Amino acid sequence: MLRKTTRTNNHIDDETLDRIDAWWRAANYLSVGQIYLLDNPLLREPLSAEHIKPRLLGHWGTCPGLNFIYAHLNRTIVERDADMIYICGPGHGGPAMVAASWLEGTYSEVYSHVGEDEDGLRALFRQFSFPGGVPSHVAPETPGSIHEGGELGYALSHAYGAALDNPDLVVAAVIGDGEAETGPLATSWHSNKFINPATDGAVLPILHLNGYKIANPALLARIPREELESLLIGYGHKPYWFEAGFDDEKPHDVHRRFAALLDDILDEITTLQREAREGTSTTRPNWPMIVFKTPKGWTGPQTVDGLPVENTWRSHQVPMGGVRGNDEYTALLESWMRSYRPEELFDSAGALRAEIARLNPAGTRRMSANPHANGGVLSRDLKLPDFRDYAVDVPEPGGVNAEATRVLGGWLGDVVRANPANFRIFGPDETISNRLKATVDAGGKAWNAEMLPTDEHLSVDGRVIEMLSEHQCQGWLEGYLLTGRHGIFNSYEAFIHIVDAMFNQHAKWLKVTRHIPWRAPIPSLNYLLSSHVWRQDHNGFSHQDPGFIDHVVNKKADIIRVYLPPDANTLLSTYDHCLRSHDYVNVVVSGKQEQPQWLSVDDAIAHCTRGIGIWEWASTDGGNVDPDVVLGCAGDVPTVETLAAVELLLKYFPDLKIRVVNVVDLMRLQDSKEHPHGLPDSEFDALFTTDRPVIFAYHGYPWLIHRLTYRRTNHGNIHVRGYKEEGTTTTPFDMVMLNDLDRYHLVIDAIDRVPRLGRRAAGVRQDMVDARLRARQYTREYGEDIPAVRDWVWPGLPTSTG
Amino acid sequence: MLRKTTRTNNHIDDETLDRIDAWWRAANYLSVGQIYLLDNPLLREPLSAEHIKPRLLGHWGTCPGLNFIYAHLNRTIVERDADMIYICGPGHGGPAMVAASWLEGTYSEVYSHVGEDEDGLRALFRQFSFPGGVPSHVAPETPGSIHEGGELGYALSHAYGAALDNPDLVVAAVIGDGEAETGPLATSWHSNKFINPATDGAVLPILHLNGYKIANPALLARIPREELESLLIGYGHKPYWFEAGFDDEKPHDVHRRFAALLDDILDEITTLQREAREGTSTTRPNWPMIVFKTPKGWTGPQTVDGLPVENTWRSHQVPMGGVRGNDEYTALLESWMRSYRPEELFDSAGALRAEIARLNPAGTRRMSANPHANGGVLSRDLKLPDFRDYAVDVPEPGGVNAEATRVLGGWLGDVVRANPANFRIFGPDETISNRLKATVDAGGKAWNAEMLPTDEHLSVDGRVIEMLSEHQCQGWLEGYLLTGRHGIFNSYEAFIHIVDAMFNQHAKWLKVTRHIPWRAPIPSLNYLLSSHVWRQDHNGFSHQDPGFIDHVVNKKADIIRVYLPPDANTLLSTYDHCLRSHDYVNVVVSGKQEQPQWLSVDDAIAHCTRGIGIWEWASTDGGNVDPDVVLGCAGDVPTVETLAAVELLLKYFPDLKIRVVNVVDLMRLQDSKEHPHGLPDSEFDALFTTDRPVIFAYHGYPWLIHRLTYRRTNHGNIHVRGYKEEGTTTTPFDMVMLNDLDRYHLVIDAIDRVPRLGRRAAGVRQDMVDARLRARQYTREYGEDIPAVRDWVWPGLPTSTG
Repeated sequence: MLRKTTRTNNHIDDETLDRIDAWWRAANYLSVGQIYLLDNPLLREPLSAEHIKPRLLGHWGTCPGLNFIYAHLNRTIVERDADMIYICGPGHGGPAMVAASWLEGTYSEVYSHVGEDEDGLRALFRQFSFPGGVPSHVAPETPGSIHEGGELGYALSHAYGAALDNPDLVVAAVIGDGEAETGPLATSWHSNKFINPATDGAVLPILHLNGYKIANPALLARIPREELESLLIGYGHKPYWFEAGFDDEKPHDVHRRFAALLDDILDEITTLQREAREGTSTTRPNWPMIVFKTPKGWTGPQTVDGLPVENTWRSHQVPMGGVRGNDEYTALLESWMRSYRPEELFDSAGALRAEIARLNPAGTRRMSANPHANGGVLSRDLKLPDFRDYAVDVPEPGGVNAEATRVLGGWLGDVVRANPANFRIFGPDETISNRLKATVDAGGKAWNAEMLPTDEHLSVDGRVIEMLSEHQCQGWLEGYLLTGRHGIFNSYEAFIHIVDAMFNQHAKWLKVTRHIPWRAPIPSLNYLLSSHVWRQDHNGFSHQDPGFIDHVVNKKADIIRVYLPPDANTLLSTYDHCLRSHDYVNVVVSGKQEQPQWLSVDDAIAHCTRGIGIWEWASTDGGNVDPDVVLGCAGDVPTVETLAAVELLLKYFPDLKIRVVNVVDLMRLQDSKEHPHGLPDSEFDALFTTDRPVIFAYHGYPWLIHRLTYRRTNHGNIHVRGYKEEGTTTTPFDMVMLNDLDRYHLVIDAIDRVPRLGRRAAGVRQDMVDARLRARQYTREYGEDIPAVRDWVWPGLPTSTG
Repeated sequence: MLRKTTRTNNHIDDETLDRIDAWWRAANYLSVGQIYLLDNPLLREPLSAEHIKPRLLGHWGTCPGLNFIYAHLNRTIVERDADMIYICGPGHGGPAMVAASWLEGTYSEVYSHVGEDEDGLRALFRQFSFPGGVPSHVAPETPGSIHEGGELGYALSHAYGAALDNPDLVVAAVIGDGEAETGPLATSWHSNKFINPATDGAVLPILHLNGYKIANPALLARIPREELESLLIGYGHKPYWFEAGFDDEKPHDVHRRFAALLDDILDEITTLQREAREGTSTTRPNWPMIVFKTPKGWTGPQTVDGLPVENTWRSHQVPMGGVRGNDEYTALLESWMRSYRPEELFDSAGALRAEIARLNPAGTRRMSANPHANGGVLSRDLKLPDFRDYAVDVPEPGGVNAEATRVLGGWLGDVVRANPANFRIFGPDETISNRLKATVDAGGKAWNAEMLPTDEHLSVDGRVIEMLSEHQCQGWLEGYLLTGRHGIFNSYEAFIHIVDAMFNQHAKWLKVTRHIPWRAPIPSLNYLLSSHVWRQDHNGFSHQDPGFIDHVVNKKADIIRVYLPPDANTLLSTYDHCLRSHDYVNVVVSGKQEQPQWLSVDDAIAHCTRGIGIWEWASTDGGNVDPDVVLGCAGDVPTVETLAAVELLLKYFPDLKIRVVNVVDLMRLQDSKEHPHGLPDSEFDALFTTDRPVIFAYHGYPWLIHRLTYRRTNHGNIHVRGYKEEGTTTTPFDMVMLNDLDRYHLVIDAIDRVPRLGRRAAGVRQDMVDARLRARQYTREYGEDIPAVRDWVWPGLPTSTG
């Protein structure tokens, strides 16, 4: 728990204030240097054209505020031995965060070519927003960061995700007033209703109210102060207002005010946590937060070309461009940089002066070196109960029915129990609907708002977190993973597109960290998508979209994995695998409805290990290399329809040589050169033949299968059925009929492509057309699927049953 | 403008209150009937199994509140002759909205098989959440709706979009307390800072605080009342609290209280609008809003199986399932339905009694028949200035440079001027960055928060609306389009994924409305995606993602259009086309940077009309059917690289027969059977040949081109280059090199595939490899692209120049 300071607020000595101010000036100097300079980093000679970057790309405006806060947090960390990380919400605060980590020595530790000397400074400046260098925003390359700038909106979600189950951690989360306009950020303030002050860490939100975005004022800076305070109180916070930089208050006085405020606030956090931990308070705290109102581009040029710059949107990016070769601008830049008095900040070698460096915390207390911000180093594997103990007993394929996600839930419930502070389940309000109730029974649902006697499962200790915001679920989970813990996000399939952009950012983060040796691998991001496209009986068309898979497979192959387990035991095996993996995004799609089970747990393990395979028990080609037709399937509903089609085909054509290939791991379809899980052509050909017709029943949009297989030998013969955006409010079987994925249509597809069936085929074809028509009519009449479908049971192959 | 009521608040007579109560009971009765009954709609005989649906699918909990509000709004509409629409935010309020439109007669007008009699009621009940019927949430099929239930989060954005430039309209927007937890909804409260009370209509937000989601309490219902009020005040509203249903207050008294409150609030809206319109107030109003706190499932069963139901989450969906064949439940259902006293509500034929029907407004004043909710009927075409007057003069291909979006902006500025209340531009803060500043100059930026003297372009009248929330931009624009007006959403390409899910819902809405004869076509949703994947010089990897196109093409072909104009004049021509279209989603991707211009405006029109074509001026096959190689390109940057590759190829192989095919309309690549814009195979073959190598340089993920063309004759020879998720902070040319889309690599790709070049090819190949290496080294050294690329100018074909 955060210590209280031993000082009283009015006794921060002048020496400390001097040190804070010097550290701040140094960070500001380094921020400006990164944006502008190629050389002459210490201004040891007059600034001239060759010292200045030809292209000026970066964002100055937010940096001085970020640096100011960082400097002050450092004092409190040292005094309290605080365990603290810094989330930099303002998108383009890169120069500030890089500057801080250089000043703390961390940058040079992880990047030895950027040493703590003049050469290192030169390299530091040059690399910023420069080809082969570092981006202009906070990025995976930035030590101390778990939060990439760019898209904006997730600073608080990430902060709270990091704080969960980290009782000693304080997450200082700076929120840009631009970012604050986004939807995800606007709702993420409510995260405080899901924090347990006894067992979670604290988040200190700092709203950086500096007034401007790229080309517009920030909204929250243009409503009355009382209105903004009311908003923040409404979000459940106790806002503290800090304003500086708008008058000629002396730096000492400014620093003294902020230092005192920070001490008060951190003491308040300590008090709130102590009361909760000692049991003297059980109410939700109104956590303190800071409105930090300072000018955009604080300490930068006041005017350029006669136009105001500081405290306007003109400070947002580069206050004056085209400096190289412009004497006036060059002089302005030089005087701006010299205003920080670099000669007082750096020693003769170019290192930060030791006196100033005393502000830095030591070792892993430095926010730039805090292990929580490189969560892999803290990560502990999950204790996973043996999933075979939770499996459905499947004496023979199709012999029993089960709800796959309910079976998974049983196992996950015990995963929750076995990993009390290391595993969480996130969802928007669908965990029970998705039939994972056992996890709620095991761990309760996190809730720290009012509770009523009629409520069930709610608990301030809950391990399942549900808020009706997919953004929050994703953001919290990312924060939890990035700090080394494990989790699952369960969602209806259609609505997971809400976080498409967030998935992008996380996948890109993972891709980049693969090439950063000091970043330790983190647990994978696991999706469980249920209530999927095929089972939206009353929700209908608006809830039908299997396209998240398409979105995911656009990302780097070494990051993404997609699984479509056909039944409960394969789902168990798949998830066991996912929860052991690192640095992936695992997308698992599984229905929740009762349906036939195909594989015993041992068979499921074998099938999932291969990821794709021939189901001999459903095939009649006897291992023959030349089946008449291959029926491929991926997904639970397509698998049922495929097996039902096998039964029909054999009823009409008992001698038909059918091969059934089921795909669990979708990436097996790709070439091994394209994806690490890909099959070599020879193995693909062995499964799908080089010249036989393939009828492939797929869970999602059919063209994805073509995209994955278009270079395969037999691609010209692969005929795919899947979701083609046809749907309405109807029964499950009517849905597959609407999209031509039903058993009858698969039979038609097959017989249309097996020439040797000759004229017998025509009659069967008509039977199938009639069967579809009857099924539709029955459904319209009775509102249910035909009994033949509802009660369908896989009969086994004729040879094995008769 | 909304009239003030002529009555005083305390003089709503008992007869009116009776009528409101009866109408409410009727709506509740119809809501329950839809969920449960197949037959016996008026309970003229005792309820028995065959009257009850076999599968009970629907949501009761929110309906009584929605019905209550609807009934009361109807009184005010009649009294004030108000022009009002109803946005039903609660996702599954379908039964309520359908009930209301049936009670108002609208339903029977547009669906004659659902008449105002017993047969009609039977059909109404049966169709709900039934195969071939209507979904359980509000949908395009629901008269009076512009807002589909399902995903949740956009009720207020849609409401404000509808209110913009509709000064006489009042949009009553009911927000579910579940929906209120979403990010988009949480920020959409701030929409009030973009409303001009003088020229826009009013939105009346009604927060339906009934406490529960699927399986959890709603957050805003579990924070103290003062905290919630503080939040809403912080959002800029004046909240009015209305609470009912938690005690035994008499219905009359409840209705009297709400009626009086509504009168007060509508009067207040009138006053605020009058003050703004008469110029007596220029400050942003704190618009009134209502917190409507009533029990979930109000008037429904109190308990089922001994467990509380009303006012718990157990009321959210079907309060008791499995009614058919369960005598106890059947009796409970019957007594529940009879509690509404249907015999007092419907006449002997089954129609709503005339006395009660007097509550209904007349004709188009009925919210279910208000033309704003079927915006196409009100829509007026845009006055479009002749875009040829804004075109770049391109005397010869490549002869001049221009910034495409800036040129477009010039024309759009005049579109803004010519269509003062019929056209808006939406963007998250990037309109000027995307070089559309002329639109801001023409129309200003909407802003009704504090303004400072240093601000530029801000105006309460602004026609460009910018808020840093893509959700808001999309939601507002959808609301604006659905009410018949026109608009554009401009965004950075990478971040448009933020609205993937919203695009889905809108595209699905359009798909469904195509089959609803009474829905008039609405103007298309137009995206302009700039600052695209290839030009993220300092933002780098995190801002690179061209996958929105992939997402879009998964939707129905007759809804979506994707354009990649290669230069300014083609962009102009494309956008002129888009702004004239209806019921589409048009995605237009165009860079903003200066680059060579290829086509005169007449050539651009011809090219865009075809959508795809051979650029003879860049081809050397002389119309020969057998070029050595076809170079295809789609997108501005790929087009530049392709033409530069042509120059290089001809330098080395002057006799090479090259054909350049440029694609503006991406859907032309698909088969005409797959997409209305698709090319028949014969035409595709005529362009791309049946057997020559095709090197295709594409703006986005390369596999999309394969997906679009995999059935084409020559697909096996199509080799695609595009973005393959490789990037960093670097220069534009380095970016294309990282992804092998650069001119040198295209040359390598071409010569590798033209066998007749023989051993000459090897040397050229090495030259290209060396050129790439030199370019990379230069970039790393100087931070800029090599001069040969920066200064590159298309020289024309050797024959034409020499």
